[in-house]
Amino acid sequence: MALLYLSVPERGAVWAQMLARAGVEMVMGEAAVTDPAAITHIACWQPPEDLARYPNLRAVISVGAGVDQMPPMPEGVILSRTIAPGIEQMVRDWVVMAVLALHRDLPLYIAQAREGCWQLHAPRSAHEARVGIMGMGRIGQLVAQTLGALGFEVAGWSRSGQSTAECAVYDQAGLPEFLARSDILVCLLPLTGQTRGLMDAAFLAQLPQGARLVQAGRGPQLDLEALRTALDSGRIAAAMLDVTDPEPLPADHWAWADPRVLITPHIAAKTGHEEGARHVLAVIEATTNGTPVPGQVDQAKGY
Amino acid sequence: MALLYLSVPERGAVWAQMLARAGVEMVMGEAAVTDPAAITHIACWQPPEDLARYPNLRAVISVGAGVDQMPPMPEGVILSRTIAPGIEQMVRDWVVMAVLALHRDLPLYIAQAREGCWQLHAPRSAHEARVGIMGMGRIGQLVAQTLGALGFEVAGWSRSGQSTAECAVYDQAGLPEFLARSDILVCLLPLTGQTRGLMDAAFLAQLPQGARLVQAGRGPQLDLEALRTALDSGRIAAAMLDVTDPEPLPADHWAWADPRVLITPHIAAKTGHEEGARHVLAVIEATTNGTPVPGQVDQAKGY
Repeated sequence: MALLYLSVPERGAVWAQMLARAGVEMVMGEAAVTDPAAITHIACWQPPEDLARYPNLRAVISVGAGVDQMPPMPEGVILSRTIAPGIEQMVRDWVVMAVLALHRDLPLYIAQAREGCWQLHAPRSAHEARVGIMGMGRIGQLVAQTLGALGFEVAGWSRSGQSTAECAVYDQAGLPEFLARSDILVCLLPLTGQTRGLMDAAFLAQLPQGARLVQAGRGPQLDLEALRTALDSGRIAAAMLDVTDPEPLPADHWAWADPRVLITPHIAAKTGHEEGARHVLAVIEATTNGTPVPGQVDQAKGY
Repeated sequence: MALLYLSVPERGAVWAQMLARAGVEMVMGEAAVTDPAAITHIACWQPPEDLARYPNLRAVISVGAGVDQMPPMPEGVILSRTIAPGIEQMVRDWVVMAVLALHRDLPLYIAQAREGCWQLHAPRSAHEARVGIMGMGRIGQLVAQTLGALGFEVAGWSRSGQSTAECAVYDQAGLPEFLARSDILVCLLPLTGQTRGLMDAAFLAQLPQGARLVQAGRGPQLDLEALRTALDSGRIAAAMLDVTDPEPLPADHWAWADPRVLITPHIAAKTGHEEGARHVLAVIEATTNGTPVPGQVDQAKGY
């Protein structure tokens, strides 16, 4: 039994110590593999091209929270995404920053600063805005809790429409109603066949006039040309994006220069080295004992 | 008994209705005063020059949270600042936005966007930063609570050094120790003789290298030239200011164009019309009944 590690050396150094302490063998990089049959687990962002090389592979573990970059797994191989409170809290922090920044007109004030212009726009309290959160998994629930505590009127939208302790959740059929009430729309959805291209012109047109958009899902969910049209029509007043399509966003893309758009380069979260190693150890333990595997992805649903 | 109202007409219209309902006479503007002896209360931002004109004046009520704009009151006249949960929550929201924006390198990303540059800087979790809050009144405590819940390591500093439920509070003598531990310094102090000019070069030099500064107090507390020097030396990495000296900041001021500084034009909070009227009614009731006056300012301390 051994873990094949395919990621950055800095993280690898921390993992090597932690795995050694736990008595788990760790192989750094495919070139170092002497016996492919010994490899039972692979931790990576992008997996090796030829997974069939490892006949005893039990699980592939994404070192990030997403798995949209992963190819289909060979039969019997479990796919796990890293579950770590640190990731969830960091994405929550980024989303809270983005929601407040858009709600309090920061893009407008940044643009005014370039002109040296001290002009007030009536500030709004959190109670005056309805936030809609798409994706009510662990991060969505955390975001709902924090924004609700600040006074925002929060609702969620998910495939299941299952209510949570934090807020009402609309289901698939409730999407038009959900969008019509969302002054600030937050996307936290995973990238799947259903969510790719979800936010197109027809979708954005269902938001209230002057809505704000916070995108912390995955780039290909949002049609940037549709966003531009919605900004120009006033349907959307401002947007903050941590993910784009493509990434990196080309230097000459219109969105960089648009004062209504704030962009961060996919930095909402990072996986802490220790947290990541703890997750991998938990996956190894679960696959050894036949207990439920943390972060196991339903490969049909894609998350 | 009558209230003299000296503020914007929009708010006055809402107040007039609420005060009429409560059976309190309200006079709009000094020109409308027919009997100065009937005026017992004045609500204003700037009071009339000649307060002696009103022999039966009991209280002057600032329509905002601050009273630094107020002259000394005639003997026996109570000074009250508006206490409203809405103000406190809005300032809290602005400070949370500013702390997260600086902690997550937003000034850097805004500057990169101007160049169309997609470059990551390792994001930090809230747990990795110590926030220091100067001013532990109602707003300071609310900020401490919210930032603590996000995972920041929070401490306060106040004149009394009195502990709160939210965090440890340093006293006057503990200032050097407080500053040395504050990766992100938040100023919420009122403007008084003690706080005017407080944040000068010697003060800022006590912060850790690369500290962040959030200024939501009053402009004259921060020496902007000292800030510039601290930014240039790297002592301060970035700052977000809602108040400046002077206000408005002149269009050609260096801070507008500095990518390390984010500026909003004194918009952290506004007093809701209804909340403001409720506060005035509570002051009138208290001064009539001889009970403690909400928002009463200790005129010797200045807050």
